[in-house]
Amino acid sequence: MNRTAREVADYLGARLDGDPAAPIAGLAGPETARAEDLIYLDSARHAARAANAAAKCVLCMADARLPGKTRIIVEQPKFAFAKVAAWLLPLPRVANGIHATAVIAASARVAPDAAVGPYAVIEDGAEIGARAQVGAHCFVGAGASVGESSILYPRVTLYAGARLGRRVVVHSGTVIGSDGFGYVHGEGRYWKFPQIGSVEIADDVEIGANTAVDRGALAATQIATGVKIDNLVQIAHNVKVGEHSVIAAQTGISGSSVVEKNAVLGGQVGVGDHCTIEEGAICGGGAGILSGKTIRKGQVVWGRPARPLEKFKEQYAWFARLPELAARLRRLEEKLSGTQP
Amino acid sequence: MNRTAREVADYLGARLDGDPAAPIAGLAGPETARAEDLIYLDSARHAARAANAAAKCVLCMADARLPGKTRIIVEQPKFAFAKVAAWLLPLPRVANGIHATAVIAASARVAPDAAVGPYAVIEDGAEIGARAQVGAHCFVGAGASVGESSILYPRVTLYAGARLGRRVVVHSGTVIGSDGFGYVHGEGRYWKFPQIGSVEIADDVEIGANTAVDRGALAATQIATGVKIDNLVQIAHNVKVGEHSVIAAQTGISGSSVVEKNAVLGGQVGVGDHCTIEEGAICGGGAGILSGKTIRKGQVVWGRPARPLEKFKEQYAWFARLPELAARLRRLEEKLSGTQP
Amino acid sequence: MNRTAREVADYLGARLDGDPAAPIAGLAGPETARAEDLIYLDSARHAARAANAAAKCVLCMADARLPGKTRIIVEQPKFAFAKVAAWLLPLPRVANGIHATAVIAASARVAPDAAVGPYAVIEDGAEIGARAQVGAHCFVGAGASVGESSILYPRVTLYAGARLGRRVVVHSGTVIGSDGFGYVHGEGRYWKFPQIGSVEIADDVEIGANTAVDRGALAATQIATGVKIDNLVQIAHNVKVGEHSVIAAQTGISGSSVVEKNAVLGGQVGVGDHCTIEEGAICGGGAGILSGKTIRKGQVVWGRPARPLEKFKEQYAWFARLPELAARLRRLEEKLSGTQP
Repeated sequence: MNRTAREVADYLGARLDGDPAAPIAGLAGPETARAEDLIYLDSARHAARAANAAAKCVLCMADARLPGKTRIIVEQPKFAFAKVAAWLLPLPRVANGIHATAVIAASARVAPDAAVGPYAVIEDGAEIGARAQVGAHCFVGAGASVGESSILYPRVTLYAGARLGRRVVVHSGTVIGSDGFGYVHGEGRYWKFPQIGSVEIADDVEIGANTAVDRGALAATQIATGVKIDNLVQIAHNVKVGEHSVIAAQTGISGSSVVEKNAVLGGQVGVGDHCTIEEGAICGGGAGILSGKTIRKGQVVWGRPARPLEKFKEQYAWFARLPELAARLRRLEEKLSGTQP
Repeated sequence: MNRTAREVADYLGARLDGDPAAPIAGLAGPETARAEDLIYLDSARHAARAANAAAKCVLCMADARLPGKTRIIVEQPKFAFAKVAAWLLPLPRVANGIHATAVIAASARVAPDAAVGPYAVIEDGAEIGARAQVGAHCFVGAGASVGESSILYPRVTLYAGARLGRRVVVHSGTVIGSDGFGYVHGEGRYWKFPQIGSVEIADDVEIGANTAVDRGALAATQIATGVKIDNLVQIAHNVKVGEHSVIAAQTGISGSSVVEKNAVLGGQVGVGDHCTIEEGAICGGGAGILSGKTIRKGQVVWGRPARPLEKFKEQYAWFARLPELAARLRRLEEKLSGTQP
Repeated sequence: MNRTAREVADYLGARLDGDPAAPIAGLAGPETARAEDLIYLDSARHAARAANAAAKCVLCMADARLPGKTRIIVEQPKFAFAKVAAWLLPLPRVANGIHATAVIAASARVAPDAAVGPYAVIEDGAEIGARAQVGAHCFVGAGASVGESSILYPRVTLYAGARLGRRVVVHSGTVIGSDGFGYVHGEGRYWKFPQIGSVEIADDVEIGANTAVDRGALAATQIATGVKIDNLVQIAHNVKVGEHSVIAAQTGISGSSVVEKNAVLGGQVGVGDHCTIEEGAICGGGAGILSGKTIRKGQVVWGRPARPLEKFKEQYAWFARLPELAARLRRLEEKLSGTQP
């Protein structure tokens, strides 16, 4: 990563104000940046941090005053910073080549330019695509597949048959394809409902650490293109998550629920079974969606059980005033105790 | 798994209506079933899905009209389906034989017909019972034991001394026997309270992925026969869970609490320390039980803090009407502003 | 661990009443103690349990009547018990020597008296300090470091560059240094915000099982000295946790929030992004702190969204009486329906 301010501005289609030859060798925050690191400034509140940084080049809006800096002028500096990062930052190296200790079944197909780390186990009929990286201690079960340029950080488990698309990133400790939690009660005990479906994860999905995605019971659990899932999330059997939806940490989605595309689930949200979160809906942090409910397209909900955001906020404000309401009611009662209707 | 409709009906003690020789080679959902897969129909709502399925045999109730299908007639089709699955589906194969790379201490006792996967580590004095399967990358600590026919999916950790009964199934990423979260504050810092107890898990327990079951502090954490625990659940030190109780995903049970038999804890429930959830009680999803509280036998509670379900629902309905109540109160106050008591 | 009552009393600076030569060979709870185990009694409620125990020596307060026992008299028996445990219990043995199967990069520096278990992987430039123990299946990424006398239980992942201090204990399944959940939406999809910061964990920190601590985005995620973190906790990017704070199971702290020193977060707490939990503040179990909020020094809060404890309790008590309040309001309305203001 050795570029000039000119090259970065050209990549972004941005206007340059300053030294076009200024070297850019990395990205950083203002406090830790070296002279040749690119920083960004997207709010006047942080102007002093940028001005005082050692960095010579700043991604910023046209009205940012940064004397002595080379400015690369864009409308959305943070977005531009992320775009430059995607362009310039090297891909993480999770493994190099095929480590001698990897246990790879004879019937597995590993692309010649894929990498597999120490002590990884790849079972019968599994497939590892071109340029994919499988970290140390990963387990790729029989018939599972990892698409091209995907990255499994160390210690990811794919149960048999789990299918991951291209450029999927899965962080350490995550389990994909475990049995769903389905039982039928009878004759005084629980009988396991068969959990023999599959898991299909499309392209450009990223999944955090220690998350669990169960396989479908009879059908498939499906995560669509571009979905981002945080750490410690629970995705139950048969769940479907639509394109470019985002699910924050410690959220749980129960069996057979559907999250449509472009939805946002905050942290610690609980979604009951057989719910539908329609396109673009937003569930605030900690919201609870009752089993079988639908959150309508674009709606914003909060609370447990969840209600439309504005309603919940109004109700919760009155909740704070309950002692006052009760006192006022009491006064009215006293006032009226002598009167007759 | 190659049976006939007759054999399946006989196993269930069910009436057969149709072709007794119809082959049954698998179980499936209506949409993905092949001709020789068994499907079930337990609600008139799904009748068209069953009628349109390629499957020739259907487990259903007597009143289901499915022209052209061979019907196996039972009172509880979903339960019958689970029973057939338990009978016919092969056990998962998590390991085959003792893999050459498994590190097994000389003093460990592994049954000759047990299986241990690649890179599993089994320490001093540990025991692996007959027909048990220990997956790749599992760690079975010193003196820990895995009962006969139990299955540890890849990457399960049993700390030293953890004891699992027979036919126990533990999914990937789960940790059993980690130290409880017990500290005593003194002299300006926290001192670890000794966490030197044990964990005992009885027969026929199933535990999901990435769950944590702590060892007891001085006594034992105990999970009784037939308990089912989902993914990402926290079971703290000294907790006791009674027979055939069910604990859904992301629920946490704090130290020294007791869940009696046949209880049901929904997802994301929080149980404080030293609680008792009595026999057959049900805690709805997201319920919060305060430390030291008892939920009485058979009671159904909801909310955080939890209250009896019907009461909570009534209260929560009024919560929604708080703005209206406040407005009505205001009107009364205005009406009375001129009057004297 | 073979001591006498005299030695233990001397260590604690405690008064001894009974046999100074009574042997102490372990610590236990009253029900499981052998004659030579030390037990403690810190509440008159449990006096019978102590009196009936086989143990000959009891840590107790001066007023505890325990005929026939040797009493070691202290003001805080439970604290004294923890102190004795820290003094006498052997450190856990997670690994012995450097196992032949450990994959250790040539450029890694492992102290001669450190221990590394089977199948551990230690990458380029990583450092393992004196007397540190790295359990089986651990992954220590490039440039990561583990301070002296620290313990990684089996199957801990340290991403590249994660830094752990001295006497840090990390339980199985925990992931330290995974990418934060930071994306910027643009051009119809999410772009990853660079997650290239670090994680710094100071001395005497203990972290439970299956927890996730993300690296900083551009700066560092920092956990200060003496912090205790339970199982299944989420610590997001850029979070700072101050000295001797305590975080119970399944709590999540969102990006860039600060928990100052000596704070206590109960279980299943949710802290939004950019919050400050000031010194000594307490967030009760399940509390939810909205993004950007500050909980003031020493304040105790509860509820979701969180409010000062006493206020929340008062409000929640009235919540239970909402049906009654509504009925009283209705009666007033009826009474007034004939009157004129």
